[in-house]
Amino acid sequence: MDQYVVGIDFGTLSGRALVVRVADGTEVGTAVHSYRHGVIEETLPATGQPLPPDWALQDPNDYRDVLRHAVPDALTGAGIRPEQVVGIGIDFTASTVLPTLADGTPLCEVSDLRDRPHAYVKLWKHHAAQPHADRINALAHERREAWIGRYGGKISAEWEFAKALQLLEEDPEVYRRAERWIEAADWIVWQLCGVETRNVCTAGYKGIYQDGRYPSRDYLTMLNPDFADFVTKLDHPLSTLGSRAGGLTAEAAAWTGLRPGTAVAVGNVDAHVTAAAANALAPGRMVLVMGTSTCHVVNGTTLAEVPGMCGVVDGGISAGAWGYEAGQSGVGDIFGWYVDHAAPPGYASHEVLTEQAAQLPVGAHGLVALDWWNGNRSLLVNHELSGLIVGLTLATRPADIYRALLESTAFGTRLIIEAFEQAGVAVDELTVAGGLMSNALLMQIYADVTRRPLGLAGSAQGPALGAAIHAAVAAGCYHDVASAAEVMGRVTRDQYVPDEARAKVYDELYAEYRALHDYLGRGGNDVLLRLRKVRNAAQVRS
Amino acid sequence: MDQYVVGIDFGTLSGRALVVRVADGTEVGTAVHSYRHGVIEETLPATGQPLPPDWALQDPNDYRDVLRHAVPDALTGAGIRPEQVVGIGIDFTASTVLPTLADGTPLCEVSDLRDRPHAYVKLWKHHAAQPHADRINALAHERREAWIGRYGGKISAEWEFAKALQLLEEDPEVYRRAERWIEAADWIVWQLCGVETRNVCTAGYKGIYQDGRYPSRDYLTMLNPDFADFVTKLDHPLSTLGSRAGGLTAEAAAWTGLRPGTAVAVGNVDAHVTAAAANALAPGRMVLVMGTSTCHVVNGTTLAEVPGMCGVVDGGISAGAWGYEAGQSGVGDIFGWYVDHAAPPGYASHEVLTEQAAQLPVGAHGLVALDWWNGNRSLLVNHELSGLIVGLTLATRPADIYRALLESTAFGTRLIIEAFEQAGVAVDELTVAGGLMSNALLMQIYADVTRRPLGLAGSAQGPALGAAIHAAVAAGCYHDVASAAEVMGRVTRDQYVPDEARAKVYDELYAEYRALHDYLGRGGNDVLLRLRKVRNAAQVRS
Repeated sequence: MDQYVVGIDFGTLSGRALVVRVADGTEVGTAVHSYRHGVIEETLPATGQPLPPDWALQDPNDYRDVLRHAVPDALTGAGIRPEQVVGIGIDFTASTVLPTLADGTPLCEVSDLRDRPHAYVKLWKHHAAQPHADRINALAHERREAWIGRYGGKISAEWEFAKALQLLEEDPEVYRRAERWIEAADWIVWQLCGVETRNVCTAGYKGIYQDGRYPSRDYLTMLNPDFADFVTKLDHPLSTLGSRAGGLTAEAAAWTGLRPGTAVAVGNVDAHVTAAAANALAPGRMVLVMGTSTCHVVNGTTLAEVPGMCGVVDGGISAGAWGYEAGQSGVGDIFGWYVDHAAPPGYASHEVLTEQAAQLPVGAHGLVALDWWNGNRSLLVNHELSGLIVGLTLATRPADIYRALLESTAFGTRLIIEAFEQAGVAVDELTVAGGLMSNALLMQIYADVTRRPLGLAGSAQGPALGAAIHAAVAAGCYHDVASAAEVMGRVTRDQYVPDEARAKVYDELYAEYRALHDYLGRGGNDVLLRLRKVRNAAQVRS
Repeated sequence: MDQYVVGIDFGTLSGRALVVRVADGTEVGTAVHSYRHGVIEETLPATGQPLPPDWALQDPNDYRDVLRHAVPDALTGAGIRPEQVVGIGIDFTASTVLPTLADGTPLCEVSDLRDRPHAYVKLWKHHAAQPHADRINALAHERREAWIGRYGGKISAEWEFAKALQLLEEDPEVYRRAERWIEAADWIVWQLCGVETRNVCTAGYKGIYQDGRYPSRDYLTMLNPDFADFVTKLDHPLSTLGSRAGGLTAEAAAWTGLRPGTAVAVGNVDAHVTAAAANALAPGRMVLVMGTSTCHVVNGTTLAEVPGMCGVVDGGISAGAWGYEAGQSGVGDIFGWYVDHAAPPGYASHEVLTEQAAQLPVGAHGLVALDWWNGNRSLLVNHELSGLIVGLTLATRPADIYRALLESTAFGTRLIIEAFEQAGVAVDELTVAGGLMSNALLMQIYADVTRRPLGLAGSAQGPALGAAIHAAVAAGCYHDVASAAEVMGRVTRDQYVPDEARAKVYDELYAEYRALHDYLGRGGNDVLLRLRKVRNAAQVRS
């Protein structure tokens, strides 16, 4: 009787369950369930009250509904019996974080708090804590906190501490009643097995856990005296990735149709599990999860501090290595913007534009773009930056612009790779996962621009497969994640190799990209920041 | 019996005749005739031989066809008798120039030269003489020629000397056989009255005639020894604008249907006659002829050298004043590019975009563009520059971009105005003529950005009316052009007045425009020039 595992990928708008055969990683069934409330950005459903700008909440019960619907549906589709399933694993967006009671009850499910926006899940893209992040960063640099270097010098407004500080200062009562402040990744595992666990990945990348501790009480007191004991809401032993969090509770077994006691893996993050899914855990093999944005993860053999990276965490991708993460905040989003809002009639199609762009010799469009349509969270870590295109002429055509946009994101990745290499973290080859990997032109551009061989993840469901691999390890089917990934992971290496002639021309364009990047992103000319201020002031006046 | 004059405007693709009543400037009839050969850019019609890149020729007989068709048609439409027409005047694109025999026969009409591209008219936008212009400029600065300052420090590749030097070096035989090298403006007058004349306007702006002389034999010898005597092909007494060139020949009378002996005014240039048509000859009243590009002309009371201006000529707009000219090489062309090649479905319309753009508060789009889609012929005088847009985000929409493009051209005009004012040439108000004057949003933006009251020329046929005004003066109906313009010219002053609140926000955006202008146009970062080189190299390889 074949053994199976279930991986569940909790995304921004829906959750996907994937049933995978332990012996060889074959995917035998999958199902998606959309969150009923989606992303809560305009008004709080419970009361209809409007939310301030830049807020993004979720309702945690929507995550339970994924367990109730997607998992049974995937099992049905796979045509297997519950007793064949030996483990269940999850991955989640991050930092997606919520306040709960000591028993894991979300505060938004406590009756007198249902009308409080701060009692809900703050989704990763809740961006209203920027002022709090700014203070966190300023104080960290002032006090020369050792941990700040582990995050490229900047803590994001998206992460646990910034969101918690906003909670404290905007709704102190909800803050006080929050006995736990927990990543949704860990919370859903808690729902599955009835036991609170905390995984090293989110604790390290999103929770500023470094060298065995969170930021100090002294530091937190200086941020706000009432924030002094914040860490008590987080503190808990951390679990390595792929370890067993517990067994499925009777309640969760009823939701999912699986057997009580089925092994549940500790929580994990979408991009990070994808490295396992693509069997790219070896140092120097960088995984790019390319969708609306790109997340870059790569294991390294030594600890280094890389300017602008999102973070480095011991065992953050897999045990026994330093896991590095970096990101680009706009990639597919920019191409989508062009198609949806900027492409002329007849060109509003990625296929048409790609086909025409592929005909252009490198550099023939005469353009360079900076890929900052959604700010920059790479080396500059500034959400107020914006994009640009230079070199426009009366002869510029849609495919020229589209190609320049594709290239600009490749230049952004090259800049990240160079920052890693300068810090001593090798990046020898690229493995791409995510929706954009199907664009052959884009893939070839990345290979040429970075002068790296580029492989493709073999599964279209990278994160869910990665979660399933971790489930297999948690179930004891494999000794560790690396050996499970060897068997269950899927990748085609060297699918694209760099062409030296094209790479040489790209060197010229990249030099222009880098010069503009530094001029406009590092204080040479703060025009983009001033334009944002003018824009915001104009929008307020109107 | 009312007296009438005929103005003929020779444009890039067609010629227009306009019949105007002398007593009050009323326009009573008009007709257009398209040039049979249009702009000759790809192949020479006589032989089919391909032309090199950047060439733009015309066939001079197409100009005669305008006399043969448009003039009689306009007279018919006006319903007046030939004896009521007392004068005829023309304006022409410039520098549009041709080689002729001593009797005015175009070399391309000499039988053994019909197959020689260099024997034809070189249209203003023939841009293949850039290397020759570069040498003309370098040598002028090296020798500290006094005249170079009168042209903002740069002679254009479009002008008489650059085009003639190209002719000499690429087809010495045609150069040798060219007894005259003459602006089409003067040539068509020669066709009308049988007498060679040369007008002060084209001689000054396009022929480097300053302080009573052309560039010296010494200077020309250093350019090329065979160019030493070039000025003999130009030399001729110059005629002031509005003076009588002669009387209509019997042949031209037959072409036009007018009476032999009818007064013919000396030649003139489209933008310059428009100042008379808009009755804007007083110092400080700048006329902007806004179409695909913009030409700025303004009379000044004193001689000044303004960086980047096209030229200053004594009596170049009207006798008794220093006529200043400046220009922007891409204006309506850029808006047209956006509508034709960059606007999404539903937005490919100036009307739709303008209506939506008009709803935006100033600065709300967060964008700044540099209006260099067609290079820069204003302060920088560099055709290799290209355009850019900064501040793009995922929220940027078509009307945002369109408005930023409109504004960028207004910023370009403000830069020109400031250069004039810094040099002591007053610019107190603006008068707009040309096709773009019907865009109320654009006009208001110009008033706000420049903080100047803005009036509109009253005639939709500004150049042809201006030519007609000069005809009236040549016919002796008015003492001078200024008094004819007072009666026959048409303008609505102060149609748009600046709004201080908007002007203040524009000050902020303009400061960004200027900083980027200087950084990218004055050597801070030559990325645009390098991108052009990369582009050209890529296009050659492909």
